[in-house]
Amino acid sequence: SVQARLEEAIERGGAAVHLPQVGHGVPRRPPHRRHRVAHQPRHREHLRPQDAPHGAARPQEKYWAGFLYFAGVNFGLTFIAAMLCVVFAPTAAGPGIPEIKAYLNGVDTPNMFGAPQLIVKIIGSICAVSSGLDLGKEGPLVHIGACLANLLSQGGSGRHRLRLRWLRYFDNDRDRRDLITCGASSGVCAAFRAPVGGVLFALEEVATWWRSALLWRTFFSTATVVVVLRGFIEVCRNGRCGLFGEGGLILFDVGDVAVRYHAGDLLPVTIVGVLGGVLGALYNHVLHKVLRVYNLINEKGRAAKLALALAVCALTSALLYVTPFAVPCTPCDPAFGGACPTLGKSGNFKRFNCPEGHYNDLATLLHATNVDATRNIFSTGTAGEFRLDSLLIFFAVYCVLGLFTFGIAVPSGLFLPIILMGSAYGRVTALVLSRFARIDHGLYAVLGAAALMSGSMRMTVSLVVIFLELTNNLLLLPITMFVLLIAKTVGDAFNPSIYEIILDLKGLPFLEAKPEPWMKDLTVGELAAAKPRAVALQVVERVSTVVEALRATRHNGFPVLDRPRPGVSELHGLVLRSHLVAALRKRWFLPERRRTEEWEAREMFSSAELADKCGGVDELEISPEEMGMYVDLHPLTNTTPYTVVETMSVAKAVVLFRSVALRHMLIMPKFQGPEISPIVGILTRQDLIAHNILGAFPHLASKRKTH
Amino acid sequence: SVQARLEEAIERGGAAVHLPQVGHGVPRRPPHRRHRVAHQPRHREHLRPQDAPHGAARPQEKYWAGFLYFAGVNFGLTFIAAMLCVVFAPTAAGPGIPEIKAYLNGVDTPNMFGAPQLIVKIIGSICAVSSGLDLGKEGPLVHIGACLANLLSQGGSGRHRLRLRWLRYFDNDRDRRDLITCGASSGVCAAFRAPVGGVLFALEEVATWWRSALLWRTFFSTATVVVVLRGFIEVCRNGRCGLFGEGGLILFDVGDVAVRYHAGDLLPVTIVGVLGGVLGALYNHVLHKVLRVYNLINEKGRAAKLALALAVCALTSALLYVTPFAVPCTPCDPAFGGACPTLGKSGNFKRFNCPEGHYNDLATLLHATNVDATRNIFSTGTAGEFRLDSLLIFFAVYCVLGLFTFGIAVPSGLFLPIILMGSAYGRVTALVLSRFARIDHGLYAVLGAAALMSGSMRMTVSLVVIFLELTNNLLLLPITMFVLLIAKTVGDAFNPSIYEIILDLKGLPFLEAKPEPWMKDLTVGELAAAKPRAVALQVVERVSTVVEALRATRHNGFPVLDRPRPGVSELHGLVLRSHLVAALRKRWFLPERRRTEEWEAREMFSSAELADKCGGVDELEISPEEMGMYVDLHPLTNTTPYTVVETMSVAKAVVLFRSVALRHMLIMPKFQGPEISPIVGILTRQDLIAHNILGAFPHLASKRKTH
Repeated sequence: SVQARLEEAIERGGAAVHLPQVGHGVPRRPPHRRHRVAHQPRHREHLRPQDAPHGAARPQEKYWAGFLYFAGVNFGLTFIAAMLCVVFAPTAAGPGIPEIKAYLNGVDTPNMFGAPQLIVKIIGSICAVSSGLDLGKEGPLVHIGACLANLLSQGGSGRHRLRLRWLRYFDNDRDRRDLITCGASSGVCAAFRAPVGGVLFALEEVATWWRSALLWRTFFSTATVVVVLRGFIEVCRNGRCGLFGEGGLILFDVGDVAVRYHAGDLLPVTIVGVLGGVLGALYNHVLHKVLRVYNLINEKGRAAKLALALAVCALTSALLYVTPFAVPCTPCDPAFGGACPTLGKSGNFKRFNCPEGHYNDLATLLHATNVDATRNIFSTGTAGEFRLDSLLIFFAVYCVLGLFTFGIAVPSGLFLPIILMGSAYGRVTALVLSRFARIDHGLYAVLGAAALMSGSMRMTVSLVVIFLELTNNLLLLPITMFVLLIAKTVGDAFNPSIYEIILDLKGLPFLEAKPEPWMKDLTVGELAAAKPRAVALQVVERVSTVVEALRATRHNGFPVLDRPRPGVSELHGLVLRSHLVAALRKRWFLPERRRTEEWEAREMFSSAELADKCGGVDELEISPEEMGMYVDLHPLTNTTPYTVVETMSVAKAVVLFRSVALRHMLIMPKFQGPEISPIVGILTRQDLIAHNILGAFPHLASKRKTH
Repeated sequence: SVQARLEEAIERGGAAVHLPQVGHGVPRRPPHRRHRVAHQPRHREHLRPQDAPHGAARPQEKYWAGFLYFAGVNFGLTFIAAMLCVVFAPTAAGPGIPEIKAYLNGVDTPNMFGAPQLIVKIIGSICAVSSGLDLGKEGPLVHIGACLANLLSQGGSGRHRLRLRWLRYFDNDRDRRDLITCGASSGVCAAFRAPVGGVLFALEEVATWWRSALLWRTFFSTATVVVVLRGFIEVCRNGRCGLFGEGGLILFDVGDVAVRYHAGDLLPVTIVGVLGGVLGALYNHVLHKVLRVYNLINEKGRAAKLALALAVCALTSALLYVTPFAVPCTPCDPAFGGACPTLGKSGNFKRFNCPEGHYNDLATLLHATNVDATRNIFSTGTAGEFRLDSLLIFFAVYCVLGLFTFGIAVPSGLFLPIILMGSAYGRVTALVLSRFARIDHGLYAVLGAAALMSGSMRMTVSLVVIFLELTNNLLLLPITMFVLLIAKTVGDAFNPSIYEIILDLKGLPFLEAKPEPWMKDLTVGELAAAKPRAVALQVVERVSTVVEALRATRHNGFPVLDRPRPGVSELHGLVLRSHLVAALRKRWFLPERRRTEEWEAREMFSSAELADKCGGVDELEISPEEMGMYVDLHPLTNTTPYTVVETMSVAKAVVLFRSVALRHMLIMPKFQGPEISPIVGILTRQDLIAHNILGAFPHLASKRKTH
């Protein structure tokens, strides 16, 4: 039933497919097996499906009925997922990891971490994964973790905030960033049951600023996740919870395999790494093109988004259902007894279109949950179980689906699709190289998955640890490290990582750690001169000037100047737009040009009011008399903003801006004199993004090419 | 022979002790055993040594001869290690990790990472470990890695630099720091065969600034270490290399043990964590006191240092030799066959003073290499092997030795002593709690070691991963995380981590990540006012003024001012002492007060000359005519130093200083006018250390207490 499928998806995050068994009785649960029996006959008779001695009448019709049921349910689930995303929370589509990365870099994507996103992500992800689409639950789980963390820290949109008293503690940017990092690492931990991997993922891929305290905080949150997970697995041990908890804390256990590799195995393993890097880079490249086309389609409106998602769903259902007919049936090994072919939800040997006592190896891979498929393909001692043609078809199908599924308007993760693709690639390599390599085919699948992941996502340490925690085989560590580093190096030679590509496509102003080399040849003064002149305010300013400044610009900060006595000028500081709006809304006006006292301001504004970022200037109605009055900015001004001298290079300014996590940086003049304004300009994140600078200074772009 | 002991120590890093067997034949190598046989008789007869039916005449004399041989060899080895340290490289004593931590924070300890330190550290560490002292090889290996990295990056003292052409690439601070981080992580990796643990150790404990590129660089270096290690282990498989390579890539394998723990085990495990935290904090506290006393002794000169080391050596030998006589003999289990009692270098059952067919369990622990002792105490399924009184004596002996050994003038590491102490503590807890807990005693030993490490060193993620890589049991992960976090939290309630205590004792100006709360109440202007006035130079300055400034102060940087036209002042930049000295040494003087051209300076100074930091001002001989001439500082000045306004709080300045890794920070005035100097002062690292600020502003200290 659909209900059961949903349940399953919640717990397993894989595409579960029940086929109506042709001419068969009640499905039984297969006995639980952790590992394959190692010895299987190498040569088997293969039967074509048409040779099957079927007792049932008119199987063709039943196949059609099966397809309609299969495709129909998938279609319905995709419709729910896409509908939710399109109508309620467009930002819940995709993995959410690039946006989290950008948030931790200082870029706040609107409507990203609120309650609607959380709910849509949870329901949408369950539906999308259940509908058999080629996507994982990992990215969405990371996003769910971040949403929960943000709601705890009172972030999100104004309407959906939690306003608990004790949560006030987290109400500052730094703690909120920390909490969201913890949420992201908890998501990875929950997805892979990999606590250390989660911490390292947050460190290597997500976070921009890192300190030692954050390390043990993320570690604490993943430890909690593992303890809770372990508790649930304990409770569910007797199978009360469907498929949840299978595999225990280690998803794909290959720990019992004695790993033996020698110097002679280095060559095939290097090949796996190099090819993995090339394939990963190719995947990034093609996915980039596909996403650009999808962006054009998605811009056409909600209907187009929905249609795209449903079209991909139909394609997926068709491919998953039709391709297994292309491969011959394999007879069951008598050693497996009742386990082959499998009849229940889970299990390793799907009969599909085969006669009794046979199984279809491609259906076994395609018509299983993603986790089961990975477990099958990682399983060791099973060199003869999958045919080369089945694996090639599997790889091709998942390449196509992986490329076309990612950009549609449903919550989707990249991890499992790439793992599946990579493991198929690894097994294919193992079959091709089987003469030269003595490593087990299942281990080749693990290495292939690692290589493709690294080739596309360019992570190293976190991937090694995630794979270690997935497979429980410490002796694989050196060889996995080797493959990952090769794949990353090869991939880096072609293009940036997939997340950087997505960040770039989304136009998020991400500040890279390292400034571009040509930034040394430009000073911040030149950069400021290319911008519209900064609007500076006086410490005691006319209300009309303030309103005009707010209406004419969209700046978030304004420099405040003062001239305490003739001949002496002062850069008093920086005032935020939100504080100006708060002052105007409170009508904190003075009839004469005078300085107010500290206590007057403290009486007037609570810290909560100043922290409130909502409200625009257009809603304010200020009478002409009030326009002629004065407002004292002195209590609202940050008197110690970070400043740089105009002759500083942009490269140095970028390092400062990113290291200290700034929003505004004031530029001071090199020379100081009575006629010289104490401020040259103001720089924001947008001004320091390489792409934007090159727009204003095209000659630097040509310089970049000659470098 | 001593030669064999040295070899062994190189490879195993443990205190190897051969006792002359009383009345016995040729020592045999015991068969290699990875795990204990699980079933042992619980109740055994215990024999007192005096009851032993000895055939040999006058055993007392032989015991004395054995002790003299044992103590004499230890004495000699300690003498070599201490002599080398005292005479050639005093900085090679101790672990070296605090100094590496300080270096990566921006504090360059002189003579720390040179060739003499490297050589002394290698030889000294081998001798010290072989001499049975209670110290590990881990810290020294980290230091050795850092020394090698520094030599590759052309650092170190001027005389001992490598001056290869292709190494020029690394000749800047940032790359040198990166290389040293890689060296440190490789050291941990080599010590524990833990590649991911090494990376995380460098990240959590050692590094101050971290970026994504550094992550995969350290990862690459540890991967190389593992590949090389694996190669050596492969080559040494047939036992050609002594004890090297035993245990393979996993030192203390407990991976085959099925770990079962339930909610009921949480209480004993919590007790292990809490007590571990308390004991770790207590260890830190007492070690702090001991180190202060040792500092007083060591200050008295070389002879005092040497005497202290030799006294500790004598104490160690006596304790190790005498204490095993206090426990009764245990009869061998017949199931072990020829493996009990052990006769060779290595092995689990030392006969010591016992009759044939019996072993002394305390001697088994004390008279083995550190690694073997840890392996014994971690071994699973051996609940009856060690007696409670033996474990208590072992724990007490190692507490005493651990406290008194660390500060002596030999290369020493803290890891293994704390692991040994902690594992004994864990086993003792297991014996005491055996009624309530169903977890294996060996696993308790692992948890105890983890708890004590975390209680003393306050690391979390890196320790978890190191323990994971040491024990190869992924299922232990959640419970280890739990214990570590408890122990760290408990320990943090009492005192800072052991490395912070050592940093503080050494007086290294380490900049903490988080500024103290009271720093918000002080502005940098106030701080600068409390210092002697900064010496500012003009862009074109008289030689005599420059020489005077250099002689009168020990500042490393001087602000340079200019007054391009009347009424306009300019903070031209910052000039370094070394560049001033270079200009004086080159006698780049101008007869008149004029600006030089860019090319004149470029012709004059090569970048190598400017980078050279050697040479003082006192060696310069400048004639009176030259004193009256001028020097143009304009080409030597960094015109874009980082600046802050005088009203900025010290807290904010500290964050900036540390985030951007500064050496000097210029303070600019709030007001700008013709009579106001464009510079208020200059801040250096020393000015921003909490301790130093409190010296100048004692009222803040009292404020701190009331907070």
